[in-house]
Amino acid sequence: MTTPAFVAGVDLGGTKILAAIVDETGAIRSRNKMPSVSAKSDQRPGPELIADRIALAVQEAAAAAGLGLADLAAVGASAPGPVNVHSGEVLGAVNLPGWEKPFPLGPELSTRLHGLPVAVDNDVNLGVWGEVMYGAGRGLRDVVGIFIGTGIGGGVVLGGELRHGVRWSAGEIGHMSMHCRGMQADVEAFASRGAISRQMHKALAKRKTRILARIVGEREKAGKGAGITSSVIKQALAAGDPTTVQAVAQSQQIVALLIASIVNLLDPECVILGGGLVESLGDLYVAPVRRQAYAHFFLQQDVERVQIVTAALGDDAVVLGAAALARARFGKATQPG
Amino acid sequence: MTTPAFVAGVDLGGTKILAAIVDETGAIRSRNKMPSVSAKSDQRPGPELIADRIALAVQEAAAAAGLGLADLAAVGASAPGPVNVHSGEVLGAVNLPGWEKPFPLGPELSTRLHGLPVAVDNDVNLGVWGEVMYGAGRGLRDVVGIFIGTGIGGGVVLGGELRHGVRWSAGEIGHMSMHCRGMQADVEAFASRGAISRQMHKALAKRKTRILARIVGEREKAGKGAGITSSVIKQALAAGDPTTVQAVAQSQQIVALLIASIVNLLDPECVILGGGLVESLGDLYVAPVRRQAYAHFFLQQDVERVQIVTAALGDDAVVLGAAALARARFGKATQPG
Repeated sequence: MTTPAFVAGVDLGGTKILAAIVDETGAIRSRNKMPSVSAKSDQRPGPELIADRIALAVQEAAAAAGLGLADLAAVGASAPGPVNVHSGEVLGAVNLPGWEKPFPLGPELSTRLHGLPVAVDNDVNLGVWGEVMYGAGRGLRDVVGIFIGTGIGGGVVLGGELRHGVRWSAGEIGHMSMHCRGMQADVEAFASRGAISRQMHKALAKRKTRILARIVGEREKAGKGAGITSSVIKQALAAGDPTTVQAVAQSQQIVALLIASIVNLLDPECVILGGGLVESLGDLYVAPVRRQAYAHFFLQQDVERVQIVTAALGDDAVVLGAAALARARFGKATQPG
Repeated sequence: MTTPAFVAGVDLGGTKILAAIVDETGAIRSRNKMPSVSAKSDQRPGPELIADRIALAVQEAAAAAGLGLADLAAVGASAPGPVNVHSGEVLGAVNLPGWEKPFPLGPELSTRLHGLPVAVDNDVNLGVWGEVMYGAGRGLRDVVGIFIGTGIGGGVVLGGELRHGVRWSAGEIGHMSMHCRGMQADVEAFASRGAISRQMHKALAKRKTRILARIVGEREKAGKGAGITSSVIKQALAAGDPTTVQAVAQSQQIVALLIASIVNLLDPECVILGGGLVESLGDLYVAPVRRQAYAHFFLQQDVERVQIVTAALGDDAVVLGAAALARARFGKATQPG
């Protein structure tokens, strides 16, 4: 019984690193979050320094669970960009300064972690994989995940496997196009949380919205800043702010059409909708999307065989997906005999 | 060496049945085409009678190749609608009268063909499969086929296998949606040959187009009818008819966006464009689509790794795909020992 029972999952984002130790049942034993931005400088570190920080984050997470690196079977890590999953190379991560060129994150992390095997994949892919392994898509083999944030990202699981594509760029759902009468734009320009916030900011700037102005004013007084967060959107929606109601409804319409398009192409078992705003609004966001999407399915038989559900794992989806990837890839190879 | 070396492929369309005998190399040994409409009546036969005709078409095709049913290992047949490929049941074929309800085409054909095993799949799926086995996508594993005709149909091959979907309805590419400023329509409403013809008919009716009127007039005089066929579109395009030029350009724009959307989602190795008009125009249609599609890819690296090519098999694609399906499914089971 010398096989280490634990793996580490890492979520590398534009501003933070989240590392977690995950046991064989998919339970998180410890979490460790640190900024990917250095506290001592305004400049964000390049890939070498980020690799250092991730290795540190993993070691600290292990220590927090009462473990050492020797207790880990493998590490799974995400990156915010396309990843060659065979080589562990991040091909480019536009949100991370210095990561424009390919960087071999897998091998670099492995070196820093005493040779532990490291698997790397795209962050949204791993979020969807986490939901399929432990969350809203558990037990399913054909799942499309759509994560709505500043932009819109996606991941495609078919036949029980993540799709990567010939250029490692599958799942760029936010960049599916919409077009008519000469106007053309990506889905995320109409439907992301970013798109919703922009419309709300515009209404605020033009003093068009008293309800929203009151909500933002009260939050500023309470020291919560003037930003339009998911929480502000939720409050403004509950208070019936017309701009917010209209912007969210537009997002829902476009996401419903996006889902219908994907279903007409792939006819999956399940579409999972995630991201902070969606998960915090829950069925308030998802139920109208579900109804409208079903109405747009070309095949109107058995529309409910295609489940449309809310993501279940919140911020843990990526680390859980990363951990599951690491376990699947390296779990057996480290078993004795 | 008692294994029959031949299989039959059948393409069942709205107006015709094409049966072909195919050898082990994928070469067609004989073709037999008959109307699916009965010559003696205006009414088209229902599913039972169509099954009779298909069985007859297969026997005649075999005879034309100097063979009998005993020389066939299996039969593959297409249907113009969703098919449960496990049971061989056609779930509905709206273009065939009497086929609104599910019909067990596979078992019914097998009964009529002395127990020969019969595999059934959707016609566009089999057209794409034919191209992957013997045509423009030979040797590739991740291919999306788009066939542009009266409507737009598609098929998706991932990991070397046709995608069917949880409701057997994957590949309905013509019904991916486009939306903006409150207007919403399916791709095929803008981009199909049907959409092009409609615009040309409209221009003719409004006497807006002298060039087109001359072409159609000359064809009528020559006894070729007043219909807007692929050949008329090709002639009008070559003569620079403005309505036709504009309608084809719109189709190309929309198809380019459709391809880019699919590539952003699936990042396949190859997109095959087929259908009578596309294959007859060749690069005149496909080259501008390729250029515009590449420009819309989200990942701009290595765009040419995603090939965008013209279908190569013309009207034989479906029977060849059906034959390949039958061989893959039943070729081994009928081998001795």
